[in-house]
Formats: sequence, C-alpha cells, structure tokens
Amino acid sequence: MSKSETVRFRTIKPEIRVLGIDDGNFVPREEGLVDLIGVVYRGGYWLEGVMRTEIEVDGMDATEKIATMVRASPHYNQLRVIMLDGITFAGFNIVDITELFQKVKLPVIAIVREKPNLEEIRKALENLPEPEKRWAAVKNAGKLSKVRTRGAEGTVYMQTAGISQVDAETIVRNTSLRSNIPEALRVAHIIASGFAKSKERFKRENLKGKGTRAR
Amino acid sequence: MSKSETVRFRTIKPEIRVLGIDDGNFVPREEGLVDLIGVVYRGGYWLEGVMRTEIEVDGMDATEKIATMVRASPHYNQLRVIMLDGITFAGFNIVDITELFQKVKLPVIAIVREKPNLEEIRKALENLPEPEKRWAAVKNAGKLSKVRTRGAEGTVYMQTAGISQVDAETIVRNTSLRSNIPEALRVAHIIASGFAKSKERFKRENLKGKGTRAR
Repeated sequence: MSKSETVRFRTIKPEIRVLGIDDGNFVPREEGLVDLIGVVYRGGYWLEGVMRTEIEVDGMDATEKIATMVRASPHYNQLRVIMLDGITFAGFNIVDITELFQKVKLPVIAIVREKPNLEEIRKALENLPEPEKRWAAVKNAGKLSKVRTRGAEGTVYMQTAGISQVDAETIVRNTSLRSNIPEALRVAHIIASGFAKSKERFKRENLKGKGTRAR
Repeated sequence: MSKSETVRFRTIKPEIRVLGIDDGNFVPREEGLVDLIGVVYRGGYWLEGVMRTEIEVDGMDATEKIATMVRASPHYNQLRVIMLDGITFAGFNIVDITELFQKVKLPVIAIVREKPNLEEIRKALENLPEPEKRWAAVKNAGKLSKVRTRGAEGTVYMQTAGISQVDAETIVRNTSLRSNIPEALRVAHIIASGFAKSKERFKRENLKGKGTRAR
C-alpha cells in the first residue's frame, strides 16, 4: 500500500466509530513501561469500549503495540478511524502513522494543539538509540495542517495517513463536541492520566509501607 | 448522622456531577487485588474524570477504600452523588452504603439489574471471615426499590443512603441515556472490564515469556 492510497468514505455518519489513543503522564526515564489507552467512541457522543497496551519509555514499539492492540480488539471490525494525541508517546516512542495505517488498514489522524518544533525534536532524537528511524517516523507523518474545531479559538493541527484531507477535517470537527479536540482523545487523556496518577500513588504508598516495615 | 438523614436537593440539574463505581472481572480467589474504577460524569452526557483504587478479593475494605478514593479526588467538592454497581465488589467485599454516606457526606445509590437473592447471599457469607459484619452491610443497604429508567423494559432496582426516594429516582432516570443504567455506571463497567482483560492478557504473555526463558 503506498502513502498516497486512502480509504474512501462515501458518507461520514455523526456516530462514526473512532478510536482515540493517548498515554498517561510518567516520570521520564524512571519507569520502563507506560500505559497507552484506547477509547472507542461513537462520534462525539458516547463511549463504547476501552482498550490498553503498554509501551517502553523512549522505546521503538509504539507502532507495533498499537497495531496489535487494535487488531486484537472486539471493536476492530466496527472501527473506521484511529486518532492519536500526536505521534510521540512515552517520551520519544514515535508512532509511524503510515506504517500503522498499513498494518491495521484504518486511516490514522494525529492531532496536536500546538505546532511542534521539528528542529527541537530532531535534536532530542540524537540522544536516543536509532535516531534515523525515529526521524523517519516523524517525516512519514507528513505535513501538519490546521483544523478549526470550535470557532476561531479552537484551532488544532493534524497529520494524516490513509484518509483525504477533507474527510479527516470533517471527522475531527464533527467529533470535537466538548473541547477543541475529538471526544475520543479528550476521554482517552482523562482515563490515561487518572490511571497514571493512581499508579503513582500506589507506588508511593507501597514504598512508604516498606519503609515502615524496615525500621 | 443517622440513617434517616438525607441530603436535600433543591434542584437536580441535568448535568449533575455523579460518580459511578464498578469493578472489573477477575478470577475468583486467584488474585489478591481487584481494580475499582470511579467515573465522574456530568449527568448522562459527558465524562469529566476517572479515578481508581484497589480492593481485596472477598475482603472487607471496599467501603473504606472508596471513601479514601473519593475524598482524595480533585472532583470531590463538585460531586453530588455516588452510584454503585450493586453493593458487592470483588466477590463478597461488601460496601456499607450508610457508612459510606457518613464518611464522604455524599448520597449513595446502589443499582442492580436483577433483584438479588438475599437468602443465597446470606449462605455464601457463612463461608467467609466475619459473616455477621458483611451481613450487617447487606441489611444497612435497606430495601430494594424498582425504578423504570427506559420504558417498560428498562427496570432496575436501587438501594439508597442519604437521599430521598424521589430524588434518587430522578437522578437515576435522568442519567440513564444510553442503556437501562446511568451512564457513569455503564462507562465505569466498560473501563473496568477493559482493564481487567488487558491485565489478564499481559499476565498470560509474561507467563509465556518466562516459560520460554526457563527452557
């Protein structure tokens, strides 16, 4: 499948099934694995499913792990599009959205609120293993284009694979009902953050508990 | 605070902030801890937050752990009511909803789809430590009353603490927009199940991995 191939949408239903993926906060370089949460939403309306995988901090496994999670999901056949909170997760574990599209045969839309500074990213990658491969994933995400989701103040940027610009814009706009970003991504962020926080708390409590016993 | 005390609602906004709590599936008696997921919902409309705690299988800590989770949440001051998927979690870890109401000063509504067989529950409790205390929690939940959430086929049963029957019915009915149960509970169930499933898968994969290394 070439980069130029796209999935054609004859119609885009308001309740189109989308998967939104985000990661939780984490202490950089402290933990080995970070949760990635996938949320199945019907358009911008209601939640239908949740899935999870784990990826390595600054690792190279995000694309493969997402593909495996999506294909293993009972929702796979109903899903129409995948949305990502940007292309970098768990530090610099970068998703190659073109590769992801080829692996799962679903269009991918990556959304960011702020235009990323590519030069800074390129420099940061130099401190990591396989910087060339990571940079290739950044380049494969293609150009960043502006989408207005909610009037003048609601501007986000997207990168796409396997979908036309106009279809991607329609889906992003139609599903951004409660904030500037699609509901699936807003909710994936809340769930991933909630879990990361509770994990951290449990960890602290366990450490405290151990400290007490050691005395 | 006595059992007869209730929180008075002057008005019940359609976007009232409710917390729905459910647990994930688990292998009975196999695992020590089960996730409890709390979901903050605005009425039946949109998700605003997620929290998590862990309780022991067949343990006695559900009431205390939920109270601690709720009080520690940044959403605590905005919450108006707590909804539970029944009163038994992680096997027979029973929530005393009257005690929970007293601990967090928020009304509690426990909802079940089927009327539970109390005699069967009483017998099952005899095989566990502190059966009297568990049975007291069951009795403290008070009488089960029918609520029609979506026409004739949408009947559920509820038990309440700290709220009038009519207010509880209004809240349960107003927030059950996509199924027979309130959205906060439907979504808490999906998140908790999704996590339990992924946990199980990771566990299996880790065991497989270990087996390979051992050869």
